[in-house]
Amino acid sequence: MDLSRYQEHYSLSHRLKRYGWYIVNRTLFRLMVTNAMKVPRNLLLRLFGANIPLASLVYPSSNIWAPWNLSVGEYACIGPDTEIYNKAPISIGNHAVISQGAFLCTASHDISDPAHALISAPITVEDQAWVAAQAFVGMGVTVGRGAVVGARSAVFRDVAPWTVVGGNPARFIKQRTLR
Amino acid sequence: MDLSRYQEHYSLSHRLKRYGWYIVNRTLFRLMVTNAMKVPRNLLLRLFGANIPLASLVYPSSNIWAPWNLSVGEYACIGPDTEIYNKAPISIGNHAVISQGAFLCTASHDISDPAHALISAPITVEDQAWVAAQAFVGMGVTVGRGAVVGARSAVFRDVAPWTVVGGNPARFIKQRTLR
Amino acid sequence: MDLSRYQEHYSLSHRLKRYGWYIVNRTLFRLMVTNAMKVPRNLLLRLFGANIPLASLVYPSSNIWAPWNLSVGEYACIGPDTEIYNKAPISIGNHAVISQGAFLCTASHDISDPAHALISAPITVEDQAWVAAQAFVGMGVTVGRGAVVGARSAVFRDVAPWTVVGGNPARFIKQRTLR
Repeated sequence: MDLSRYQEHYSLSHRLKRYGWYIVNRTLFRLMVTNAMKVPRNLLLRLFGANIPLASLVYPSSNIWAPWNLSVGEYACIGPDTEIYNKAPISIGNHAVISQGAFLCTASHDISDPAHALISAPITVEDQAWVAAQAFVGMGVTVGRGAVVGARSAVFRDVAPWTVVGGNPARFIKQRTLR
Repeated sequence: MDLSRYQEHYSLSHRLKRYGWYIVNRTLFRLMVTNAMKVPRNLLLRLFGANIPLASLVYPSSNIWAPWNLSVGEYACIGPDTEIYNKAPISIGNHAVISQGAFLCTASHDISDPAHALISAPITVEDQAWVAAQAFVGMGVTVGRGAVVGARSAVFRDVAPWTVVGGNPARFIKQRTLR
Repeated sequence: MDLSRYQEHYSLSHRLKRYGWYIVNRTLFRLMVTNAMKVPRNLLLRLFGANIPLASLVYPSSNIWAPWNLSVGEYACIGPDTEIYNKAPISIGNHAVISQGAFLCTASHDISDPAHALISAPITVEDQAWVAAQAFVGMGVTVGRGAVVGARSAVFRDVAPWTVVGGNPARFIKQRTLR
């Protein structure tokens, strides 16, 4: 491996957009503290390209890499201190919840490449799914409709709909049934 | 699951108390940086209802949700960057240690309820137990007297006294014996 | 266990050096935000005793306990929000990468000692190894040349060269071969 050959290319306009959003995320967005201010927060996200309904709840302490790669459903929630690391698109479904401290990580490196090239793939959290506190979701993963990714667990493969998984690496725990 | 029906009810006085403490925790409390200032930090915690001796050590970068739900023993330590998420009571015993980055999480959601209701249960860390760096302790768990929850492990069930557990999910590693 | 007997001894000069660096790390270092400012960041690290080439990349949001216990190789990278907790020395090899949120933890406590004495041991990440996002590396561990410690995994034993490990506790996944 020879990291002197490592590179990530981003256009100047991409970098300006990203720095602009980074500053907004860490300042103005952070200051909109109450749930009552979710609408102006969502308007800021829309201004930077997010596809988000006004009523969905994105906490002010969430860290979003690229709003233009973020799609959020109706009545969805992205909780406090979450890392939405969307070098590839991240899609959060309707009534889906991403709890505090969760990390959705769309990027990795090609470990067979001597130049350690960046690779990425989208993450999809389908309708009514719940990614619980401090869980980790790896690149390319789809969390199926109604599935639960347990607190602190780490998933690197798709999670089947209406199942509950936990642990690191995460394993099937049980089916989920609603009353 | 229908999150348009989700709700958490808190009285106005509860919310005012919580915002008040939140601001104090992130400002004045943070500024009391040295170990020598543990007493004024503990006085602030007492002012917001914590049951804590003056000599116990709570680091200024710890994040405590509700001091009025916190009980700390003699010569106990709550380390830096810890998350004391006590929607239900959290009790830390005498000579017990919560190390840096640990997360004590008393809340979850009822995953069989279509309204995703919040549920919570107390956490107890008994005398002389040690919750090591970045460990996670789930709702309702009792960490027994003298037990060790290893670094980065995640426990969702009670930990027997004088045992050492590790991993995610945490498993029994060995008995602990003092010299 | 009797924590009233717990103590860590540091000389006044050590403590002054550490407070000095702590303030620099959280202020001036943090403000040197772009990759283009890696050289002044590395000069600051050198000023506090780090052994680091000017071209290696240490992100401004990394948290380094003691630069004088840090050695970094050519073309190495220490990513954002990393915890370099080097109470004992930490050595990062040439072309080695420590990704975002990783925690290299050189310290623990002697759990058989009633006074809970602090213990520590060095961590070595050899050339061309990669400690991926939010991984945890425990005290005394050597991550072998070209090895990969997977995202979110936790290693408490040495990792053999050119192997890939993952999970908590981390287990062997496969050999790594470069194209």
